[in-house]
Amino acid sequence: MNNDILVVGSVAFDTIENANGCAKRVLGGATSYASICASYFAHPSVVAVVGTDFTAQDKAPFIKRKINLKGLEVKEGKTFHWGGSYDKDFNTAITKFTDLNVFKDFKPVLSKEQQNIQTVFLANIDPELQLSVLKQVKRPRIVACDTMNFWISSKKAALLRVIKQVDVLFLNETEARQLTGIYNLISAGKWLLKKGVKYVIIKLGSNGSMLVSEEGIAQLPPYILEHVHDTTGAGDTFGGGFTGYLASLKSWDNLTAIKRAMMIGNVMASFTIESFSVKRLASLTKRDIDKRLKEYTAMLKF
Amino acid sequence: MNNDILVVGSVAFDTIENANGCAKRVLGGATSYASICASYFAHPSVVAVVGTDFTAQDKAPFIKRKINLKGLEVKEGKTFHWGGSYDKDFNTAITKFTDLNVFKDFKPVLSKEQQNIQTVFLANIDPELQLSVLKQVKRPRIVACDTMNFWISSKKAALLRVIKQVDVLFLNETEARQLTGIYNLISAGKWLLKKGVKYVIIKLGSNGSMLVSEEGIAQLPPYILEHVHDTTGAGDTFGGGFTGYLASLKSWDNLTAIKRAMMIGNVMASFTIESFSVKRLASLTKRDIDKRLKEYTAMLKF
Repeated sequence: MNNDILVVGSVAFDTIENANGCAKRVLGGATSYASICASYFAHPSVVAVVGTDFTAQDKAPFIKRKINLKGLEVKEGKTFHWGGSYDKDFNTAITKFTDLNVFKDFKPVLSKEQQNIQTVFLANIDPELQLSVLKQVKRPRIVACDTMNFWISSKKAALLRVIKQVDVLFLNETEARQLTGIYNLISAGKWLLKKGVKYVIIKLGSNGSMLVSEEGIAQLPPYILEHVHDTTGAGDTFGGGFTGYLASLKSWDNLTAIKRAMMIGNVMASFTIESFSVKRLASLTKRDIDKRLKEYTAMLKF
Repeated sequence: MNNDILVVGSVAFDTIENANGCAKRVLGGATSYASICASYFAHPSVVAVVGTDFTAQDKAPFIKRKINLKGLEVKEGKTFHWGGSYDKDFNTAITKFTDLNVFKDFKPVLSKEQQNIQTVFLANIDPELQLSVLKQVKRPRIVACDTMNFWISSKKAALLRVIKQVDVLFLNETEARQLTGIYNLISAGKWLLKKGVKYVIIKLGSNGSMLVSEEGIAQLPPYILEHVHDTTGAGDTFGGGFTGYLASLKSWDNLTAIKRAMMIGNVMASFTIESFSVKRLASLTKRDIDKRLKEYTAMLKF
């Protein structure tokens, strides 16, 4: 066992407006947040595509975090670019534009080396592509998967085929309800367990996260912040931290490990939301992380 | 120090419709839930008013829980009766009728004995009445106070005068934002600290509760239930359990005690929502409570 983690999905530019200001064409995309976050616990290897407009400066956060970019394909054209704005409460992101550009024809092709990576994080992409990745990996030990409302409504059958093969599924409240047709989150989680997921993780935004599994259910609070700068990427950070932490464990398939992974996800997401893009997330020290983990566990001590 | 607790507010009948059925003219009111819950940790003494239609059977849960009812005034007329319904998700209660009846002229008058009780829970009533109670109590050691949107919009000045004198203030998210005009809950909490509250407790419904204080902030998850029968009285139960637990402590004014009180509130509320009225809440054993507290702390262990 090594602690490599394969992260497959989007590397993108984001243009964001919110109550704290705006950020133009900054590094974004689920794979960026997830792999940079995972890098604090494991060795991420990325499968993604960018355009020829993606510069060395855009790559810098990945390089700094020693992320394997051999699988970052550079294709003639422009990088995926999302534009959106948030109301002052970060409750809803309003999409202004989605220029898929080179991402439109993204077909993840894993190198031999990547096919042997045992921890797989399928960031939010078309479930058909997630299935193609699962066909390529040879001996996965942990498969974690994220998704979004768009795929639930447009590719539900494919998504359910993915779900059959995953150990950990991340969804937010709305997605869990949309996918299962069940309002109660625990009941929704149990429905997903029947579909083959081992650990269902429901992301509760500013209320932390919930676990539904055969071994037990749990709800863990967030790491509380008074000032939130931008919530873009918080969920991807959660998933990357969660899965990266599991990749570092010899024995990951138990309630204690999963709850610790949730704690890591909650705490790491608190860094992401302190800045636009990966600015804060990519520049952490072990000390920064340990401090918050300590504060978090102290908060939950009686 | 003894562990008496004064609970002032409404004892009422509720008529409720929700997805699980309906309950007609069952025991309700903030003071019923709060005092019955507090009775597991302290000795509640009630100040409330009911009509001549309030029977021995209606009193039975109080008697069973050894609650002091000397302050339960019986007035010619009918008992306060609230009717409402919930959508299937318990997100919003729709009031169908509010027959205040004898409660309309409720003027809390404390007996000599009650004036000396050192722990005071001001359930959700007109802040002018809460002020009159605070004038009557002689040497309060702990003053906790609940309120609601109605008083925030109609009697804000009086409510702010109450707040100056309370140690613990309970509000839900919407009320905290409404009272302070601040969206971020921690910032809203800090605003309330400046107004004189020592511990601001924001009730988060199915997401547990949050503490804002000079000593620290914390967010604690709920005790998770898959099946919720009826949420009426959950907040009052939380407040009663919280304050009743503090009443039982020699040293209550510290972060550890307050966090334990939050845990007690969260766990006790989980019993209330398992039935209509106080049916479940009034028939607990120490074993029932200890089991859930144990499960709760186990959930938060890493």
